[in-house]
Amino acid sequence: MTSDLQDRSINTLRFLSADGVQKANSGHPGLPMGAAAMAYTIWTRHLRHSPRNPKWMGRDRFILSGGHGSMLLYSLLHLTGYDLPLEQIQNFRQWGSITPGHPEYGLTPGVEVTTGPLGQGFANGVGMAIASAHLAATFNKPGHELIDTYIYAIVTDGDLMEGVASEAASLAGHLSLGRLVYLYDDNKISIDGSTDLAFTEDRAKRFEAYGWHIQRVDDGNDVEAIDKAIKAAKADPRPSLILCRTTIGYGAPNRQGTQKAHGEPLGDEELNAAKDNLGWPKEPRFLIPEEVLAFYRKAVDRGRELEADWKMRREAYSRLFPDLGAEFNRRVLMNKLPENWASALPTFPADPKGMATRAASGKVINALAAKIPELLGGSADLAPSNNTKIDGVPAFQKDSPAGRNFHFGVREHAMGSVLNGMAVFGGVLPYGATFLVFADYMRPAIRLAALSHYPTIFIFTHDSVGLGEDGPTHQPIEHLISLRLIPNLVVLRPADANETAQAWKVAIMRRDGPTLLALTRQNLPTLDVGQVANLSYGAYVLKDFGTPEIILMASGSEVNLILDAAQNLADEGKGVRVVSFPSWELFEKQDEAYRESVLPKSIQKRLAVEAGASLGWERYAKSTISIDHYGASAPAKVIFEKLGFTVENVVAKAKEL
Amino acid sequence: MTSDLQDRSINTLRFLSADGVQKANSGHPGLPMGAAAMAYTIWTRHLRHSPRNPKWMGRDRFILSGGHGSMLLYSLLHLTGYDLPLEQIQNFRQWGSITPGHPEYGLTPGVEVTTGPLGQGFANGVGMAIASAHLAATFNKPGHELIDTYIYAIVTDGDLMEGVASEAASLAGHLSLGRLVYLYDDNKISIDGSTDLAFTEDRAKRFEAYGWHIQRVDDGNDVEAIDKAIKAAKADPRPSLILCRTTIGYGAPNRQGTQKAHGEPLGDEELNAAKDNLGWPKEPRFLIPEEVLAFYRKAVDRGRELEADWKMRREAYSRLFPDLGAEFNRRVLMNKLPENWASALPTFPADPKGMATRAASGKVINALAAKIPELLGGSADLAPSNNTKIDGVPAFQKDSPAGRNFHFGVREHAMGSVLNGMAVFGGVLPYGATFLVFADYMRPAIRLAALSHYPTIFIFTHDSVGLGEDGPTHQPIEHLISLRLIPNLVVLRPADANETAQAWKVAIMRRDGPTLLALTRQNLPTLDVGQVANLSYGAYVLKDFGTPEIILMASGSEVNLILDAAQNLADEGKGVRVVSFPSWELFEKQDEAYRESVLPKSIQKRLAVEAGASLGWERYAKSTISIDHYGASAPAKVIFEKLGFTVENVVAKAKEL
Repeated sequence: MTSDLQDRSINTLRFLSADGVQKANSGHPGLPMGAAAMAYTIWTRHLRHSPRNPKWMGRDRFILSGGHGSMLLYSLLHLTGYDLPLEQIQNFRQWGSITPGHPEYGLTPGVEVTTGPLGQGFANGVGMAIASAHLAATFNKPGHELIDTYIYAIVTDGDLMEGVASEAASLAGHLSLGRLVYLYDDNKISIDGSTDLAFTEDRAKRFEAYGWHIQRVDDGNDVEAIDKAIKAAKADPRPSLILCRTTIGYGAPNRQGTQKAHGEPLGDEELNAAKDNLGWPKEPRFLIPEEVLAFYRKAVDRGRELEADWKMRREAYSRLFPDLGAEFNRRVLMNKLPENWASALPTFPADPKGMATRAASGKVINALAAKIPELLGGSADLAPSNNTKIDGVPAFQKDSPAGRNFHFGVREHAMGSVLNGMAVFGGVLPYGATFLVFADYMRPAIRLAALSHYPTIFIFTHDSVGLGEDGPTHQPIEHLISLRLIPNLVVLRPADANETAQAWKVAIMRRDGPTLLALTRQNLPTLDVGQVANLSYGAYVLKDFGTPEIILMASGSEVNLILDAAQNLADEGKGVRVVSFPSWELFEKQDEAYRESVLPKSIQKRLAVEAGASLGWERYAKSTISIDHYGASAPAKVIFEKLGFTVENVVAKAKEL
Repeated sequence: MTSDLQDRSINTLRFLSADGVQKANSGHPGLPMGAAAMAYTIWTRHLRHSPRNPKWMGRDRFILSGGHGSMLLYSLLHLTGYDLPLEQIQNFRQWGSITPGHPEYGLTPGVEVTTGPLGQGFANGVGMAIASAHLAATFNKPGHELIDTYIYAIVTDGDLMEGVASEAASLAGHLSLGRLVYLYDDNKISIDGSTDLAFTEDRAKRFEAYGWHIQRVDDGNDVEAIDKAIKAAKADPRPSLILCRTTIGYGAPNRQGTQKAHGEPLGDEELNAAKDNLGWPKEPRFLIPEEVLAFYRKAVDRGRELEADWKMRREAYSRLFPDLGAEFNRRVLMNKLPENWASALPTFPADPKGMATRAASGKVINALAAKIPELLGGSADLAPSNNTKIDGVPAFQKDSPAGRNFHFGVREHAMGSVLNGMAVFGGVLPYGATFLVFADYMRPAIRLAALSHYPTIFIFTHDSVGLGEDGPTHQPIEHLISLRLIPNLVVLRPADANETAQAWKVAIMRRDGPTLLALTRQNLPTLDVGQVANLSYGAYVLKDFGTPEIILMASGSEVNLILDAAQNLADEGKGVRVVSFPSWELFEKQDEAYRESVLPKSIQKRLAVEAGASLGWERYAKSTISIDHYGASAPAKVIFEKLGFTVENVVAKAKEL
């Protein structure tokens, strides 16, 4: 192609983006204008993708970690032929459009992950590279590289400042995830002003310390230099960071290189001046020169060719390795669970001594892992406490990417975001664990999983003051409710080993959002397996003592307590219903008739018992035994007793109703 | 002293800690046994403190960032003469003791910050160093260094892996906080096993990249080497990290150097073997040789001398600089606000056009800052959006530590933890800001402020879907409620400019915990200042239309909406009460009579309107207009209309009651 066409192709990205922001009168022109050449180089010279089949599994992935530059991504998607018509570009940031302020996975074809909250895209990419490496190790055969993904990203100053990206970068370096090719939009500007105000560390050296391969491109508009660096990055076995020195708002004569270019429309005058400056026609707005469009749209045919080639290779693979081919088909392409996987779910004999639900979860994981090879995961350095280890399989490490046990390190936030990247990549079913109190450390990742419908599984053990001696800093109080508040997150707090198995069943089957398991440190009596079959309804009648006049409800470790209390009340001649309430979200999804059958309006004497904050239980109960203050450092038994989690107190409170 | 006494002093730390863990049958012996020599060197050769006056302002600060090693800190406090009797050591982790599993500020004399959640102590220290540098720049005169603090910390692998510490370290390097002397307990072990499993980055190089001064001590038991390194660290103008190679559980023959030494008691057998191994008597447990106690207790007299000397210097200072001396007295020693500070609170004329509460907050900050020199703060790179800048004063930077405007960078989590460190240091009244949705990024810091009673002020702007076009990734939904859930956090969501001023008054006066201000991006009509005087009650009657039969309640941006709706209802002859409800926590603190006066039981037709999740409003209202799903990218006006935040809908819902 001519250098003129190239320049115009890059300027098309710039001004399509700037025009979109201007029309919306809202948005961020600076990143698209500054990073257009980087994006151009990735998208036209490296990225393997198929715009008419955005989900083609053989594609590379592109992440715009600085999601505020969304117009750059939308421009790329439109130009290369995704199902994103120009009207959507023109409807940027408007009600009902699929071009929101920040890119959202699932909403816009070709958007690989939701970005905007900084650092998340960076860390999601690490998860994708992990999933890709694992699938490659699992399926690829010499000469038959079905999984051969590169993960490209444009990352920003903000991403590099965020702790979650630091954690993820350290992990990526440790794991030597060589397929990561991150281009750093090093524009020296953040919202407050020059990065000299707050961000003067030696980024290159920091990433070298993590074990990354570092290159610099002095002129972020130099396509050849960027191209060369990307080639070198792809050839290097380490994750790569290419520091590209760019100018934010490049072209805008009065704003480029300043924070004024970052987050507001240029205004017509400055926009016109920028177009003059770069030799671009001021009108029409949203100009896409025909030959530029034709050039970008080559991606469509090229994508079809890539797909066809991959299909052929896949077929050859399936002929040579029919079992693996079938498995690849099931697991990676169709995203279907193995037949009869649920038969692997263990049941536990009723047992008054019982076991901790974290221990039951460990057993369930191991039973399922034998049947579901895509099930894999680990812990943020609490594997022995979280019971997340799959026995008999290696750890996922640089030299053992087929491993399924993950050591995320003490990096909860990155773990969450990495899990999200793994989940959205496909072909793997990832879980990650820490203590429930540390859900706070990874809350942005949990929220993004829920918002973006990633089927991530979060395991949180030590789910109440029942963790005991570690004390208030480690005891969740408000966490259960505050997690139930996150839309599209399913929170499950099973009451015993058998409910735990059922909870895992829900988690495994859920595909349109994340599932969270809250598990105990302490032992709980195991109920009869027949009693817990209705867990998936969210709440169900565990037992009626006589004709109920009182309802006791509880989740998790408090269910056995209310069972005992109900027995006492029954002994005194009261009619009591015991409701196990593992999940508010699942219960709310049931129809009115079912909900009425469990919690009839006619029975208003209702007591909820949960070792956590009370707020919101008003929805179901008249009264609660709960904890609305911080916990204490003491043996769990003592704490429960002191805080009123005793049969006597439940009986007394029930009688008060 | 003899080397024998030194060895025994260090072994006393080891075995007092290990015995405490053993007696509790719970806890972490590994860190105290491995890091005892580091702690010994800091505490007996460097740390300036006064055990009988733990709050002496001239002291250095010591932070055990790996709070799980709490027994090390409790041993040091007991031995050096703090008010922590041996019975407390023997009651480690028991109900009612002041020796909880992880150190808690405010509970135990001499504990400078709450630690346990990893990375927090590390970042708190950065905040302390900032506060110290600022006070030094403000008050010190040549030859009169009243503020001369070193911040010592023992930090662990877990701390260094956490993103919050990475963020804080980058900030500390940028600001060249030379008073930080951090000793890294480099024991190569975390809970999952060897740090080789997940943490193989070059830590020294990473911290060099941040701009830190790096030293290594090859033998973490070598007191002279540690001492020498600390001396060099103190002399260097950069923050210092001393990598001390240690052995976790040092001395325990079968567990040292393994993860088994980390988080469980050694057991009597191994504990005895360890004592044999290091030449320590097996019995009695909790042995403190007399001469060892005498040696450590010298800290008491030495502390008194240090205090006396400091007092003398302070008096000399006050004679030479009487105004500054008085100000130092008021601000730093007595922690008293200036006389009549509240007279600086601005009022705003009633105005239907009004202004955004973030803008009002900016004006309030500037008005107060002129009167309260200790008020200072900034934003996580959103200063222009958060309106946090104090006009006419410089930024706090390496070369301008007297500055009061802070550029925290895109580091929300570190900002939160750094603010906590500043708040607990004293002499400053810090605030920090970001968008409300990013409260999630710093939630662990907010929780620790609340748990530890730090008077930190958190400002969160763009507090609803009213932020508009940035879309769902940036729109808080569940955040208000999930923050109200945190015990001892006061959440304030003012309804207009005048309520914003009142909210700031509450925040400034609050000393026993953090206060959070949720502020709008969008303009809100300004109410008459006389109407909002009761904000500090949390909820109050803004206006009664006739004799109320219906109560409309709302917080923040929805208050004016219900006012308009109430007017409409009144026009139709309905009696309506309008309740402004800026703070649940403050309302709950009022007596029953007041609460009844605002929300009489006799009026059960109650509608709550808030542009956020509904959960919990059941406590006050029968019905809500709220948002229990993610937002949308569109102009704010459109979103509010589409989601039912209109006068028509409020009127309709009110009539349904």
